[in-house]
Amino acid sequence: MIWVDGIATPTLPADDRGLQYGDGLFETMRVVTGRVPLLERHLARLNAGCGRLALPAPEPAALRSEIAAACAGHNDAVLKLVVTRGSGGRGYRAPPGPRTRRVVSLYPRREWQCEPVSASIRARTCLTRLAIGGPLVGLKHLNRLEQVLARSEWQDDTIAEGLMLDAEGMIVAGTMTNLFLVIDGALQTPALDRCGVAGIARSMVLELAAELDLQVAQRRITVSALGDADEIFVCNSVVGVRPLSELDGRALATAPLTARVRAALSSRGLAA
Amino acid sequence: MIWVDGIATPTLPADDRGLQYGDGLFETMRVVTGRVPLLERHLARLNAGCGRLALPAPEPAALRSEIAAACAGHNDAVLKLVVTRGSGGRGYRAPPGPRTRRVVSLYPRREWQCEPVSASIRARTCLTRLAIGGPLVGLKHLNRLEQVLARSEWQDDTIAEGLMLDAEGMIVAGTMTNLFLVIDGALQTPALDRCGVAGIARSMVLELAAELDLQVAQRRITVSALGDADEIFVCNSVVGVRPLSELDGRALATAPLTARVRAALSSRGLAA
Repeated sequence: MIWVDGIATPTLPADDRGLQYGDGLFETMRVVTGRVPLLERHLARLNAGCGRLALPAPEPAALRSEIAAACAGHNDAVLKLVVTRGSGGRGYRAPPGPRTRRVVSLYPRREWQCEPVSASIRARTCLTRLAIGGPLVGLKHLNRLEQVLARSEWQDDTIAEGLMLDAEGMIVAGTMTNLFLVIDGALQTPALDRCGVAGIARSMVLELAAELDLQVAQRRITVSALGDADEIFVCNSVVGVRPLSELDGRALATAPLTARVRAALSSRGLAA
Repeated sequence: MIWVDGIATPTLPADDRGLQYGDGLFETMRVVTGRVPLLERHLARLNAGCGRLALPAPEPAALRSEIAAACAGHNDAVLKLVVTRGSGGRGYRAPPGPRTRRVVSLYPRREWQCEPVSASIRARTCLTRLAIGGPLVGLKHLNRLEQVLARSEWQDDTIAEGLMLDAEGMIVAGTMTNLFLVIDGALQTPALDRCGVAGIARSMVLELAAELDLQVAQRRITVSALGDADEIFVCNSVVGVRPLSELDGRALATAPLTARVRAALSSRGLAA
């Protein structure tokens, strides 16, 4: 099902700036028993992104009402919200009073997303690199062709995620997840100051690390650091926290610290 | 007017991957007396881009017929062709047999585009930077949010173009044009090995430079080199070649070499 500006319809105007230029943002949210557990965090990130793009944020009441209507009666689903700068303008130049357009779609969760959250996943490292710098760093914007190309690198359904490096060879994230390493009992995650998306689940892990007495460092992480990691996990709002059981054919052992993080996140309402 | 897969319609499916991920390419073409003078070059670039994205190229006969129908009877217009990976797939992963979607739209030319091609333009330097590296370098793809943000930096209608630097401060291009400098009687243009779009007009200027006995270098160009330039011009398929009369308030003198390049391009059918 898809709703455009609150109306159930399978189409939207072909002059939408989201299509023409990728001029917009999105949020992908887990739906559990008819509601989005992390809705406030998603809406806060969306509003912050709208601020950075000078995109008028969607009217909150209308947006909440549309999301609630879309979720109603669904026990386990994924809701995607796309927000664009609407129609019009002359080339890249936006129209003087842009009318933000909302596109809400509801999907079933996919196979590996539905496995028990304790289930570890197999992952690989992608050849497709992420460009460095520019004004979009950290945003969950609609310019996602790099991720599409990375995801096209493998067809093996038993591999759930691919890790991406930046153009200088530093580890950044999975195609649809953020990434943490456990090394000597402490957490490390790539700094997102040059590329990548600042994920909701990632921000929750960072917040909870202190409560769990875990040190956490945001830093540049080399490929060789992956080899030093005792545990590696990926996370997002839809799958929660998932340890890697294998990366590029190398088996990774059990993940006790990842399990602690997962339990803490579940207690805070993260989809699990 | 907009045609989607050859059918005149103002809408397209809301699950189109062009909207959801920017998963596609585009061409912006000048229309003169009912036809696109540089059609073969545009289609060749489109096909090359489809190859890089593993996107099935549109069926040539259907595409040519749609473009011809859209142009018919229009003396002076702009035709935009968007090609996307169509609907479907699971997240970033494309569907197994993607059906490429074509979106053709026809627009009037805008003010500064319609001025005599000899008319010089005022330009400014943008603060918005271009990210460096990754798999999209040189492609005319749909991920254009950097250009949208750059174009939002000014509202003065007498400024026609903004120049963009990359994340390391090197000059790359205009928001919608490529860029050439004339220094000591030779041409210089930014190398497009780290970001930017390899434009049709740019490639024609490069080809003609030899015939005009002009040296041309593709290289990294610093901001200070702009100050050393005797002439600066921008180019694309819609506006042809346009010398800058002013950059960031600095007046630039007459542009005799730019005029030679312009004349040579006009004789090859570049929109002028």
